[in-house]
Amino acid sequence: MSKSPDATRRSERSRRAILDAALTLVGEVGYNKLTIEAIAARAGVGKQTIYRWWPSKAAVLLDASLSLSGEAVEEGGWTGFPDTGDLAADLKTVLRITVDQFLDERYDAPTRALTAAGATDPDLGTRFTEQLLEPQLALYEARLRTAVDAGQLPADTDLRLMVEMLVGPLTYRWLMRTAPLAHAHTDALVDVVLRGVGYVTTRPAAAGA
Amino acid sequence: MSKSPDATRRSERSRRAILDAALTLVGEVGYNKLTIEAIAARAGVGKQTIYRWWPSKAAVLLDASLSLSGEAVEEGGWTGFPDTGDLAADLKTVLRITVDQFLDERYDAPTRALTAAGATDPDLGTRFTEQLLEPQLALYEARLRTAVDAGQLPADTDLRLMVEMLVGPLTYRWLMRTAPLAHAHTDALVDVVLRGVGYVTTRPAAAGA
Repeated sequence: MSKSPDATRRSERSRRAILDAALTLVGEVGYNKLTIEAIAARAGVGKQTIYRWWPSKAAVLLDASLSLSGEAVEEGGWTGFPDTGDLAADLKTVLRITVDQFLDERYDAPTRALTAAGATDPDLGTRFTEQLLEPQLALYEARLRTAVDAGQLPADTDLRLMVEMLVGPLTYRWLMRTAPLAHAHTDALVDVVLRGVGYVTTRPAAAGA
Repeated sequence: MSKSPDATRRSERSRRAILDAALTLVGEVGYNKLTIEAIAARAGVGKQTIYRWWPSKAAVLLDASLSLSGEAVEEGGWTGFPDTGDLAADLKTVLRITVDQFLDERYDAPTRALTAAGATDPDLGTRFTEQLLEPQLALYEARLRTAVDAGQLPADTDLRLMVEMLVGPLTYRWLMRTAPLAHAHTDALVDVVLRGVGYVTTRPAAAGA
Protein backbone atom coordinates (compact mmCIF):
# COMPACT_ATOMS: atom_id res chain seq x y z
CA MET A 1 0.00 0.00 0.00
CA SER A 2 1.42 3.39 -0.93
CA LYS A 3 1.65 6.22 1.58
CA SER A 4 -0.91 9.00 1.73
CA PRO A 5 0.14 12.37 0.28
CA ASP A 6 0.37 13.80 3.82
CA ALA A 7 2.66 11.00 5.02
CA THR A 8 4.88 11.45 1.98
CA ARG A 9 5.11 15.15 2.67
CA ARG A 10 5.97 14.50 6.34
CA SER A 11 8.64 11.98 5.30
CA GLU A 12 10.19 14.43 2.88
CA ARG A 13 10.16 17.15 5.55
CA SER A 14 11.91 14.82 8.04
CA ARG A 15 14.43 13.72 5.44
CA ARG A 16 15.25 17.34 4.60
CA ALA A 17 15.55 18.26 8.31
CA ILE A 18 17.93 15.33 8.91
CA LEU A 19 20.19 16.23 5.98
CA ASP A 20 20.27 19.91 7.02
CA ALA A 21 21.06 18.97 10.61
CA ALA A 22 23.85 16.64 9.49
CA LEU A 23 25.47 19.37 7.38
CA THR A 24 25.24 22.01 10.08
CA LEU A 25 26.55 19.70 12.79
CA VAL A 26 29.48 18.27 10.85
CA GLY A 27 30.61 21.83 10.18
CA GLU A 28 30.31 22.63 13.89
CA VAL A 29 31.88 19.57 15.54
CA GLY A 30 33.71 17.74 12.75
CA TYR A 31 33.14 14.26 11.42
CA ASN A 32 34.64 12.27 14.29
CA LYS A 33 32.48 13.83 17.01
CA LEU A 34 29.29 13.76 14.95
CA THR A 35 26.68 11.27 16.23
CA ILE A 36 23.35 10.01 14.90
CA GLU A 37 21.87 11.02 18.28
CA ALA A 38 22.95 14.64 17.79
CA ILE A 39 21.62 14.72 14.22
CA ALA A 40 18.27 13.33 15.42
CA ALA A 41 18.04 15.87 18.24
CA ARG A 42 18.88 18.79 15.96
CA ALA A 43 16.43 17.60 13.28
CA GLY A 44 13.68 17.02 15.86
CA VAL A 45 13.17 13.38 14.87
CA GLY A 46 13.72 10.06 16.62
CA LYS A 47 17.00 8.16 16.18
CA GLN A 48 15.04 5.30 14.63
CA THR A 49 13.77 7.57 11.87
CA ILE A 50 17.37 8.11 10.77
CA TYR A 51 18.28 4.43 11.04
CA ARG A 52 15.22 3.51 8.96
CA TRP A 53 16.73 5.40 6.00
CA TRP A 54 20.50 5.30 6.57
CA PRO A 55 22.79 2.65 8.08
CA SER A 56 25.49 5.06 9.35
CA LYS A 57 26.47 8.69 9.78
CA ALA A 58 28.76 8.37 6.73
CA ALA A 59 25.73 7.39 4.64
CA VAL A 60 23.72 10.36 5.96
CA LEU A 61 26.56 12.74 5.14
CA LEU A 62 27.01 11.33 1.67
CA ASP A 63 23.34 11.99 0.91
CA ALA A 64 23.52 15.39 2.58
CA SER A 65 26.50 16.39 0.45
CA LEU A 66 24.83 15.11 -2.69
CA SER A 67 21.74 17.17 -1.92
CA LEU A 68 23.95 20.21 -1.29
CA SER A 69 25.59 19.84 -4.70
CA GLY A 70 22.14 19.33 -6.20
CA GLU A 71 20.90 22.58 -4.67
CA ALA A 72 23.82 24.54 -6.10
CA VAL A 73 23.01 23.16 -9.53
CA GLU A 74 19.34 24.10 -9.15
CA GLU A 75 20.16 27.60 -7.87
CA GLY A 76 22.45 28.05 -10.86
CA GLY A 77 19.45 27.14 -13.00
CA TRP A 78 21.45 24.71 -15.12
CA THR A 79 21.05 21.05 -15.83
CA GLY A 80 24.36 19.26 -16.17
CA PHE A 81 27.69 20.69 -17.22
CA PRO A 82 27.24 23.64 -19.60
CA ASP A 83 28.11 23.08 -23.25
CA THR A 84 27.83 26.29 -25.24
CA GLY A 85 30.50 25.13 -27.68
CA ASP A 86 32.94 27.57 -26.02
CA LEU A 87 35.04 25.35 -23.75
CA ALA A 88 36.86 28.23 -22.03
CA ALA A 89 33.60 29.97 -21.16
CA ASP A 90 32.00 26.74 -19.93
CA LEU A 91 34.92 25.87 -17.65
CA LYS A 92 35.02 29.40 -16.27
CA THR A 93 31.29 29.26 -15.53
CA VAL A 94 31.59 26.02 -13.58
CA LEU A 95 34.69 27.07 -11.65
CA ARG A 96 33.10 30.41 -10.74
CA ILE A 97 30.18 28.47 -9.25
CA THR A 98 32.67 26.34 -7.29
CA VAL A 99 34.36 29.50 -5.99
CA ASP A 100 30.96 30.79 -4.87
CA GLN A 101 30.26 27.49 -3.09
CA PHE A 102 33.59 27.56 -1.26
CA LEU A 103 32.83 31.13 -0.16
CA ASP A 104 29.40 30.05 1.15
CA GLU A 105 29.58 29.01 4.82
CA ARG A 106 26.74 26.47 4.36
CA TYR A 107 28.93 24.62 1.87
CA ASP A 108 32.40 25.45 3.17
CA ALA A 109 32.11 24.08 6.71
CA PRO A 110 30.66 20.62 5.98
CA THR A 111 32.87 20.17 2.91
CA ARG A 112 36.01 20.96 4.92
CA ALA A 113 34.91 18.54 7.63
CA LEU A 114 34.31 15.74 5.14
CA THR A 115 37.53 16.42 3.26
CA ALA A 116 39.49 16.35 6.52
CA ALA A 117 37.82 13.11 7.63
CA GLY A 118 38.42 11.50 4.26
CA ALA A 119 42.05 12.61 4.18
CA THR A 120 42.91 10.67 7.33
CA ASP A 121 40.47 7.73 7.06
CA PRO A 122 41.28 5.75 3.89
CA ASP A 123 37.98 3.80 3.81
CA LEU A 124 35.88 6.90 4.30
CA GLY A 125 38.06 8.86 1.88
CA THR A 126 37.65 6.22 -0.82
CA ARG A 127 33.89 6.24 -0.33
CA PHE A 128 33.60 10.02 -0.53
CA THR A 129 35.88 10.17 -3.53
CA GLU A 130 34.02 7.43 -5.40
CA GLN A 131 30.50 8.60 -4.60
CA LEU A 132 30.85 12.39 -4.36
CA LEU A 133 33.99 13.51 -6.15
CA GLU A 134 34.33 11.10 -9.07
CA PRO A 135 30.85 11.84 -10.47
CA GLN A 136 31.79 15.54 -10.52
CA LEU A 137 35.15 14.89 -12.16
CA ALA A 138 33.37 12.68 -14.70
CA LEU A 139 31.20 15.64 -15.74
CA TYR A 140 34.34 17.67 -16.45
CA GLU A 141 35.85 14.75 -18.36
CA ALA A 142 32.73 14.32 -20.47
CA ARG A 143 32.77 18.02 -21.38
CA LEU A 144 36.47 17.80 -22.30
CA ARG A 145 35.83 14.71 -24.39
CA THR A 146 33.28 16.67 -26.41
CA ALA A 147 36.00 19.23 -27.07
CA VAL A 148 38.38 16.45 -28.16
CA ASP A 149 35.71 15.12 -30.52
CA ALA A 150 35.22 18.64 -31.91
CA GLY A 151 38.93 18.87 -32.66
CA GLN A 152 39.44 21.64 -30.07
CA LEU A 153 41.77 19.53 -27.92
CA PRO A 154 44.48 17.11 -29.12
CA ALA A 155 43.23 13.50 -29.31
CA ASP A 156 45.90 12.33 -26.88
CA THR A 157 45.06 14.87 -24.14
CA ASP A 158 45.35 13.35 -20.65
CA LEU A 159 41.84 14.30 -19.55
CA ARG A 160 42.26 13.17 -15.94
CA LEU A 161 45.39 15.30 -15.57
CA MET A 162 43.59 18.22 -17.20
CA VAL A 163 40.60 17.95 -14.86
CA GLU A 164 42.88 17.84 -11.83
CA MET A 165 44.74 20.88 -13.14
CA LEU A 166 41.40 22.71 -13.20
CA VAL A 167 40.02 21.67 -9.81
CA GLY A 168 43.30 20.96 -7.95
CA PRO A 169 44.73 24.49 -7.66
CA LEU A 170 41.37 25.92 -6.57
CA THR A 171 40.79 23.17 -4.01
CA TYR A 172 44.35 23.69 -2.76
CA ARG A 173 43.92 27.45 -2.31
CA TRP A 174 40.59 26.89 -0.55
CA LEU A 175 41.81 24.12 1.76
CA MET A 176 45.24 25.59 2.59
CA ARG A 177 44.08 29.22 2.66
CA THR A 178 47.15 30.33 0.69
CA ALA A 179 45.36 33.21 -1.02
CA PRO A 180 41.83 34.64 -1.38
CA LEU A 181 39.40 32.88 -3.74
CA ALA A 182 38.16 34.94 -6.69
CA HIS A 183 36.60 34.49 -10.10
CA ALA A 184 39.62 36.22 -11.64
CA HIS A 185 41.80 33.46 -10.18
CA THR A 186 39.88 30.58 -11.74
CA ASP A 187 39.42 32.47 -15.02
CA ALA A 188 43.21 32.84 -15.27
CA LEU A 189 43.65 29.19 -14.32
CA VAL A 190 41.40 28.07 -17.18
CA ASP A 191 43.34 30.19 -19.66
CA VAL A 192 46.73 28.74 -18.62
CA VAL A 193 45.46 25.15 -18.63
CA LEU A 194 43.81 25.48 -22.05
CA ARG A 195 46.91 27.06 -23.53
CA GLY A 196 49.03 24.36 -21.90
CA VAL A 197 47.14 21.50 -23.49
CA GLY A 198 46.97 23.17 -26.90
CA TYR A 199 43.32 24.18 -27.04
CA VAL A 200 42.14 25.70 -30.33
CA THR A 201 38.78 27.39 -30.81
CA THR A 202 37.68 25.77 -34.03
CA ARG A 203 34.23 26.86 -35.03
CA PRO A 204 32.37 24.16 -36.92
CA ALA A 205 30.93 25.65 -40.15
CA ALA A 206 27.47 24.34 -39.25
CA ALA A 207 27.38 26.53 -36.14
CA GLY A 208 26.91 29.71 -38.17
CA ALA A 209 24.38 28.18 -40.58
CA MET B 1 77.56 28.46 31.65
CA SER B 2 77.37 26.30 28.57
CA LYS B 3 76.33 22.65 28.78
CA SER B 4 78.87 19.84 28.72
CA PRO B 5 79.19 17.91 25.41
CA ASP B 6 77.44 14.93 27.04
CA ALA B 7 74.50 17.02 28.21
CA THR B 8 74.19 18.58 24.77
CA ARG B 9 74.18 15.14 23.17
CA ARG B 10 71.53 13.92 25.63
CA SER B 11 69.40 17.00 24.91
CA GLU B 12 69.65 16.47 21.19
CA ARG B 13 68.73 12.80 21.61
CA SER B 14 65.65 13.73 23.67
CA ARG B 15 64.64 16.43 21.21
CA ARG B 16 64.91 13.96 18.32
CA ALA B 17 62.93 11.31 20.24
CA ILE B 18 60.16 13.82 20.99
CA LEU B 19 59.85 14.96 17.37
CA ASP B 20 59.82 11.35 16.11
CA ALA B 21 57.19 10.37 18.70
CA ALA B 22 55.02 13.36 17.74
CA LEU B 23 55.13 12.43 14.05
CA THR B 24 54.37 8.76 14.65
CA LEU B 25 51.54 9.49 17.07
CA VAL B 26 49.79 12.17 15.02
CA GLY B 27 49.71 9.71 12.12
CA GLU B 28 48.23 7.06 14.41
CA VAL B 29 45.61 9.00 16.38
CA GLY B 30 45.17 12.26 14.47
CA TYR B 31 45.77 15.81 15.67
CA ASN B 32 42.76 16.20 17.94
CA LYS B 33 43.48 13.15 20.08
CA LEU B 34 47.22 13.78 20.30
CA THR B 35 48.41 14.80 23.79
CA ILE B 36 51.71 16.01 25.21
CA GLU B 37 51.43 13.14 27.74
CA ALA B 38 51.32 10.54 24.96
CA ILE B 39 54.25 12.14 23.13
CA ALA B 40 56.29 12.15 26.36
CA ALA B 41 55.46 8.50 27.09
CA ARG B 42 56.32 7.39 23.55
CA ALA B 43 59.57 9.39 23.56
CA GLY B 44 60.54 8.10 27.00
CA VAL B 45 60.91 11.58 28.49
CA GLY B 46 59.07 13.52 31.17
CA LYS B 47 56.22 15.88 30.22
CA GLN B 48 58.23 18.77 31.65
CA THR B 49 61.03 18.10 29.17
CA ILE B 50 58.60 18.81 26.34
CA TYR B 51 57.13 21.90 28.00
CA ARG B 52 60.65 23.25 28.56
CA TRP B 53 61.12 23.46 24.77
CA TRP B 54 57.61 23.82 23.34
CA PRO B 55 54.50 25.66 24.63
CA SER B 56 51.93 23.39 22.89
CA LYS B 57 51.45 20.27 20.78
CA ALA B 58 50.97 22.49 17.71
CA ALA B 59 54.44 23.93 18.31
CA VAL B 60 55.95 20.43 18.67
CA LEU B 61 54.31 19.33 15.42
CA LEU B 62 55.45 22.39 13.54
CA ASP B 63 59.05 21.66 14.52
CA ALA B 64 58.59 17.96 13.79
CA SER B 65 57.28 18.71 10.31
CA LEU B 66 60.07 21.17 9.66
CA SER B 67 62.65 18.56 10.66
CA LEU B 68 60.92 16.02 8.39
CA SER B 69 61.20 18.37 5.41
CA GLY B 70 64.78 19.06 6.37
CA GLU B 71 65.58 15.32 6.35
CA ALA B 72 64.12 14.89 2.86
CA VAL B 73 66.31 17.72 1.62
CA GLU B 74 69.39 16.15 3.24
CA GLU B 75 68.59 12.69 1.87
CA GLY B 76 68.20 14.24 -1.57
CA GLY B 77 71.67 15.67 -1.08
CA TRP B 78 70.69 19.12 -2.28
CA THR B 79 70.81 22.51 -0.65
CA GLY B 80 67.91 24.70 -1.61
CA PHE B 81 65.76 24.58 -4.73
CA PRO B 82 67.80 23.28 -7.70
CA ASP B 83 68.79 25.80 -10.36
CA THR B 84 70.53 24.11 -13.27
CA GLY B 85 69.28 26.76 -15.70
CA ASP B 86 66.76 24.22 -17.03
CA LEU B 87 63.51 25.22 -15.34
CA ALA B 88 61.54 22.19 -16.57
CA ALA B 89 64.16 19.76 -15.25
CA ASP B 90 64.40 21.57 -11.90
CA LEU B 91 60.63 21.59 -11.35
CA LYS B 92 60.40 17.90 -12.30
CA THR B 93 63.18 17.07 -9.84
CA VAL B 94 61.46 18.81 -6.94
CA LEU B 95 58.00 17.41 -7.72
CA ARG B 96 59.44 13.87 -8.03
CA ILE B 97 60.86 14.27 -4.53
CA THR B 98 57.44 15.42 -3.32
CA VAL B 99 55.84 12.35 -4.92
CA ASP B 100 58.38 10.15 -3.13
CA GLN B 101 57.58 11.88 0.17
CA PHE B 102 53.82 11.39 -0.26
CA LEU B 103 54.48 7.70 -1.00
CA ASP B 104 56.57 7.40 2.19
CA GLU B 105 54.41 6.37 5.18
CA ARG B 106 56.68 8.29 7.60
CA TYR B 107 55.76 11.48 5.76
CA ASP B 108 52.28 10.65 4.48
CA ALA B 109 50.55 9.89 7.79
CA PRO B 110 51.61 12.96 9.82
CA THR B 111 51.20 15.29 6.84
CA ARG B 112 47.64 14.05 6.24
CA ALA B 113 46.84 14.48 9.92
CA LEU B 114 48.17 18.04 9.98
CA THR B 115 46.47 18.96 6.71
CA ALA B 116 43.16 17.62 8.00
CA ALA B 117 43.52 19.48 11.31
CA GLY B 118 44.46 22.70 9.52
CA ALA B 119 41.57 22.39 7.08
CA THR B 120 38.96 22.49 9.84
CA ASP B 121 40.72 24.71 12.40
CA PRO B 122 41.30 28.16 10.84
CA ASP B 123 43.85 29.32 13.45
CA LEU B 124 45.89 26.14 13.23
CA GLY B 125 45.54 26.10 9.44
CA THR B 126 46.82 29.66 9.16
CA ARG B 127 49.80 28.79 11.37
CA PHE B 128 50.73 25.70 9.40
CA THR B 129 50.31 27.51 6.11
CA GLU B 130 52.40 30.48 7.19
CA GLN B 131 55.18 28.54 8.88
CA LEU B 132 55.36 25.29 6.89
CA LEU B 133 53.76 25.79 3.50
CA GLU B 134 54.55 29.39 2.58
CA PRO B 135 58.34 28.95 2.97
CA GLN B 136 58.14 26.02 0.52
CA LEU B 137 55.98 27.95 -1.95
CA ALA B 138 58.42 30.86 -1.64
CA LEU B 139 61.25 28.57 -2.84
CA TYR B 140 59.24 27.74 -5.96
CA GLU B 141 58.46 31.41 -6.51
CA ALA B 142 62.12 32.40 -6.17
CA ARG B 143 63.12 29.79 -8.78
CA LEU B 144 60.39 31.01 -11.14
CA ARG B 145 61.50 34.60 -10.65
CA THR B 146 64.99 33.61 -11.78
CA ALA B 147 63.40 32.23 -14.95
CA VAL B 148 61.48 35.48 -15.45
CA ASP B 149 64.73 37.42 -15.04
CA ALA B 150 66.39 35.10 -17.59
CA GLY B 151 63.63 35.89 -20.08
CA GLN B 152 62.34 32.29 -20.01
CA LEU B 153 58.96 33.31 -18.57
CA PRO B 154 56.89 36.40 -19.49
CA ALA B 155 57.49 39.33 -17.13
CA ASP B 156 53.80 39.45 -16.16
CA THR B 157 53.55 35.77 -15.18
CA ASP B 158 51.31 35.27 -12.13
CA LEU B 159 53.89 33.34 -10.09
CA ARG B 160 51.55 32.46 -7.22
CA LEU B 161 49.04 30.99 -9.64
CA MET B 162 51.84 29.10 -11.39
CA VAL B 163 53.17 27.63 -8.14
CA GLU B 164 49.69 26.52 -7.13
CA MET B 165 49.25 24.93 -10.55
CA LEU B 166 52.40 22.90 -9.88
CA VAL B 167 51.71 21.79 -6.31
CA GLY B 168 47.88 21.92 -6.29
CA PRO B 169 47.06 19.04 -8.65
CA LEU B 170 49.61 16.75 -6.96
CA THR B 171 48.38 17.63 -3.47
CA TYR B 172 44.81 17.08 -4.66
CA ARG B 173 45.53 13.64 -6.11
CA TRP B 174 47.40 12.68 -2.92
CA LEU B 175 44.78 13.97 -0.51
CA MET B 176 41.66 12.83 -2.40
CA ARG B 177 43.19 9.58 -3.68
CA THR B 178 41.72 10.17 -7.15
CA ALA B 179 44.57 8.36 -8.94
CA PRO B 180 47.97 6.80 -8.15
CA LEU B 181 50.95 9.12 -7.66
CA ALA B 182 53.79 8.75 -10.14
CA HIS B 183 56.76 10.67 -11.49
CA ALA B 184 55.23 10.48 -14.97
CA HIS B 185 52.21 12.37 -13.61
CA THR B 186 54.18 15.31 -12.21
CA ASP B 187 56.51 15.36 -15.25
CA ALA B 188 53.47 15.75 -17.51
CA LEU B 189 52.05 18.40 -15.17
CA VAL B 190 55.22 20.49 -15.42
CA ASP B 191 55.14 20.31 -19.22
CA VAL B 192 51.52 21.49 -19.44
CA VAL B 193 52.04 24.32 -16.95
CA LEU B 194 55.21 25.58 -18.65
CA ARG B 195 53.55 25.51 -22.05
CA GLY B 196 50.51 27.23 -20.57
CA VAL B 197 52.48 30.19 -19.22
CA GLY B 198 54.59 30.54 -22.36
CA TYR B 199 57.93 29.21 -21.16
CA VAL B 200 60.81 29.46 -23.63
CA THR B 201 64.16 27.76 -23.15
CA THR B 202 66.49 30.57 -23.98
CA ARG B 203 70.09 29.53 -23.60
CA PRO B 204 72.33 32.39 -22.61
CA ALA B 205 75.32 32.54 -25.01
CA ALA B 206 77.73 32.33 -22.06
CA ALA B 207 76.46 28.85 -21.11
CA GLY B 208 78.12 27.22 -24.12
CA ALA B 209 81.36 29.18 -23.82
